[in-house]
Amino acid sequence: MGRVTSRTPVLRIRGEQRSTRPDTVAAEEPLEIRLSGSPLAVTMRTPGDDFDLVHGFLATEGVIASAADVLALRYCDSVDADGRNTYNVVDVDLAPGVQPPDTALDRNFLTSSSCGVCGKASIDAIRTRTRHDVAADALRLPLEVLLGLPDRLRAAQQVFDRTGGLHGAGLFTVAGELVAVREDVGRHNAVDKVVGDAVRAGRLPLSGHVLVVSGRASFELTQKAAMAGIPVLAAVSAPSSLAVELAADVGITLVGFLRGDGCNVYSRTDRLALD
Amino acid sequence: MGRVTSRTPVLRIRGEQRSTRPDTVAAEEPLEIRLSGSPLAVTMRTPGDDFDLVHGFLATEGVIASAADVLALRYCDSVDADGRNTYNVVDVDLAPGVQPPDTALDRNFLTSSSCGVCGKASIDAIRTRTRHDVAADALRLPLEVLLGLPDRLRAAQQVFDRTGGLHGAGLFTVAGELVAVREDVGRHNAVDKVVGDAVRAGRLPLSGHVLVVSGRASFELTQKAAMAGIPVLAAVSAPSSLAVELAADVGITLVGFLRGDGCNVYSRTDRLALD
Repeated sequence: MGRVTSRTPVLRIRGEQRSTRPDTVAAEEPLEIRLSGSPLAVTMRTPGDDFDLVHGFLATEGVIASAADVLALRYCDSVDADGRNTYNVVDVDLAPGVQPPDTALDRNFLTSSSCGVCGKASIDAIRTRTRHDVAADALRLPLEVLLGLPDRLRAAQQVFDRTGGLHGAGLFTVAGELVAVREDVGRHNAVDKVVGDAVRAGRLPLSGHVLVVSGRASFELTQKAAMAGIPVLAAVSAPSSLAVELAADVGITLVGFLRGDGCNVYSRTDRLALD
Repeated sequence: MGRVTSRTPVLRIRGEQRSTRPDTVAAEEPLEIRLSGSPLAVTMRTPGDDFDLVHGFLATEGVIASAADVLALRYCDSVDADGRNTYNVVDVDLAPGVQPPDTALDRNFLTSSSCGVCGKASIDAIRTRTRHDVAADALRLPLEVLLGLPDRLRAAQQVFDRTGGLHGAGLFTVAGELVAVREDVGRHNAVDKVVGDAVRAGRLPLSGHVLVVSGRASFELTQKAAMAGIPVLAAVSAPSSLAVELAADVGITLVGFLRGDGCNVYSRTDRLALD
């Protein structure tokens, strides 16, 4: 079964001190997702919570709406040169009536863009695909709860402390209670694992929840929040222009630079209870 | 033409202080790369240095070996809803005799993996594709030069200071001289732009050089260093397990946690001149 970390020898240099010793690094392995035996996507991920990852990926790409849309999923019996199962291939059977995507998922926004490819078309494609009215979410989030979330996420990130090498994603209630946390070498995978956990528990859409990510807020992460019906996305670091545009367009409260006693709020500031 | 940053209104909260004002964020837009009109790949990138990005992407994926393998490249006249060129589609004509990849590039390592998909097969695929003997590179890098590189990279990152939102990649000589620096919302794009700049200048393989990245060292970044013939990859943050394995396998010196007066060296420590 997949390893979340692995040990490797390292020459450690700190000022005048040098030592050679084993060190712990975050594990990275490819995961191939197949639909009824046909390759759909490959992602470099940290092994573990793979079924969450697959559910989250399929949900945030708009292929499935709930766990009921998945008839079965299993690790293929793919083996390495030594005959051991790699646990790096997951095969999914969709339920009858669930439409598989007709192209590789990373091509989706090509087909929907009449203007070649541009940010506006990418945003339009998300708005077309999402099943949830995030804009209508009446969540009210106290500022003091928001400011406390990075510490809570960090405290729950067990592997980061040992490796310094993982992105974290955490799902919280407006009271600041941690619902789920996942870690991965890929930040999109950490979010997919959190969303997939909710899909499998039948909790989509995630209205009334806050998604916190340890890094930056990109278009892709904002897309995943929209597809999961999450009204607040808060990042410890900076957002991109297209993340801001998408959040404003679909009605997500986008928070950046969430650290210490402050933050920047880029859209739907009305959800923040400031006093 | 592409914007590297854009302005957006933001509610800024710092302790008791609140202000609403325009803020600068890093621009993110999709770029579609086409080969003779056929879509090859789409990447979310920061506009600018797009021809570098395309050359670097094609070189690190093993499609081209030098600028001579590209007959022509141009922005397509793709227009948005207002009739303006999006500058988000670049069409490439390969020189006669240069073989286009027979599948989408993100599928490449599927076809080369006899064991389903696994890290070992991914590494084997890189070793098969790279044209340069990185392991034989006799570079010697003084420790004091290495330790000074993050400050030099940061000083050269002009956009980061305004947005906090960009990954940086810098190419240096063993004397610590900056050869090229590029920034992007995607760290793989920042590296592709640096490599592509060298491809266009006819400087591949980049033997005797050091590549510094502002974030973590993943499998993908290590792959790009190998494909460009760069013997030293130094990351400010943590490496992944597969990055360490690939670096050890192809003979790259992989440095992580390069900050302050220290670092961790995971492979080919012999290239470091410690005193």
